[in-house]
Amino acid sequence: MKRQKTSSDEDGSSLKQRAYSESHSIEDILVEFEDIDHRLMNLDRECAKEQMKIQRKFDEKKRPTLEERKKVIEKIPRFWYDTLCRHPLIAEHIHSEDLDILKHLKHIELDDNLDDEGSYCISLIFDERVSDIMEPLVLKKHIIYKDDEEKVQEVTTIKWKSVSPKTLITEKINKMEGDIDKEKLNFSIFDFFDKDFNHNVDIGDIIRRDIFHAPLLYYCDNEQAEEE
Amino acid sequence: MKRQKTSSDEDGSSLKQRAYSESHSIEDILVEFEDIDHRLMNLDRECAKEQMKIQRKFDEKKRPTLEERKKVIEKIPRFWYDTLCRHPLIAEHIHSEDLDILKHLKHIELDDNLDDEGSYCISLIFDERVSDIMEPLVLKKHIIYKDDEEKVQEVTTIKWKSVSPKTLITEKINKMEGDIDKEKLNFSIFDFFDKDFNHNVDIGDIIRRDIFHAPLLYYCDNEQAEEE
Repeated sequence: MKRQKTSSDEDGSSLKQRAYSESHSIEDILVEFEDIDHRLMNLDRECAKEQMKIQRKFDEKKRPTLEERKKVIEKIPRFWYDTLCRHPLIAEHIHSEDLDILKHLKHIELDDNLDDEGSYCISLIFDERVSDIMEPLVLKKHIIYKDDEEKVQEVTTIKWKSVSPKTLITEKINKMEGDIDKEKLNFSIFDFFDKDFNHNVDIGDIIRRDIFHAPLLYYCDNEQAEEE
Repeated sequence: MKRQKTSSDEDGSSLKQRAYSESHSIEDILVEFEDIDHRLMNLDRECAKEQMKIQRKFDEKKRPTLEERKKVIEKIPRFWYDTLCRHPLIAEHIHSEDLDILKHLKHIELDDNLDDEGSYCISLIFDERVSDIMEPLVLKKHIIYKDDEEKVQEVTTIKWKSVSPKTLITEKINKMEGDIDKEKLNFSIFDFFDKDFNHNVDIGDIIRRDIFHAPLLYYCDNEQAEEE
């Protein structure tokens, strides 16, 4: 629905003059407005900073319990694999070529809120058996925020022992026929370790906010599991 | 893309037995897991509570500056009308029947974070001229959160002097032909003052998080404005 005209439909040169002087005075008002906005934004920033301090205090408090959780998770076969695969967005986009590797995923680690801007580092830790497929066993991505923009501080370069899953997926998709969105389909979870990763399935955000925060929610999602 | 099998493809009765005893021990592990999760969630809740205290402290600090802003806004003709209409989600859904009334909108007020759960109250304040169309001049909706669910604590009942904009919009849409989503189109901004309002254009959230928080961003959105 296109929005309607918001300006009135009056016309005539005197009205035009009025509009001209009005627009000038509005400019002055907007300068004043921007100054106020600036002060409000500064207060918001100060607030976010204080809240982040609290967050980091609680992250510290959660650490021993997360260590306990890690030990429990190690007792459940393929816990992170199942949890990842049952996240609806990942379930929708994942390919078997990735799953063949992800079944060797041993642990996911998150170092969250590393600074006041909320930088974080995600590690995927694989078992020895993956070394036939790729190197190293620990894939790491460290994301920082500078001037409200996301930047990659550090990322592991994966060395594929043979053809990468992404190459296999791309080949598979290129062979597909019919009315499909090839660009959207052409997705590998390992794209995340590309410095310029920018898919709308934001793996970093999904792991940070969903998977690591509430893994049991996805692991126990029977609806997804029963669809198998 | 449908997700792949996550369980292994082994078979045989001994394997089935192992799976049975495994699933039992996994149940025990999950009980332990749930306990850990519970403790983590309690820490998260405690953290959110402390952060809300900070938020409310800063809301208080922002109050005098917001009062200044209010005075500046009063000098700009139809500021809130233009701001609302230039929000992309509202621009997409608004009908002329609503705009005829919204042009009398004098001010928007937000009482935010009224408690630790983040309850809030939105008021739309209209000028006298609207009294030919509806009553009262101040429309208010107070939303609270209980057990993580949104509930309407208080909402103004609008008394329409003649046919309501929603009735006009519904009539207009019912006359439309072709392949259109009538349910999606049938939207009035005044639906927000319905106790059971549940449209995917979440007016409360839009006003709270976008419009009131950064009105200038939308008011100065020339791209939208130039589409007029």
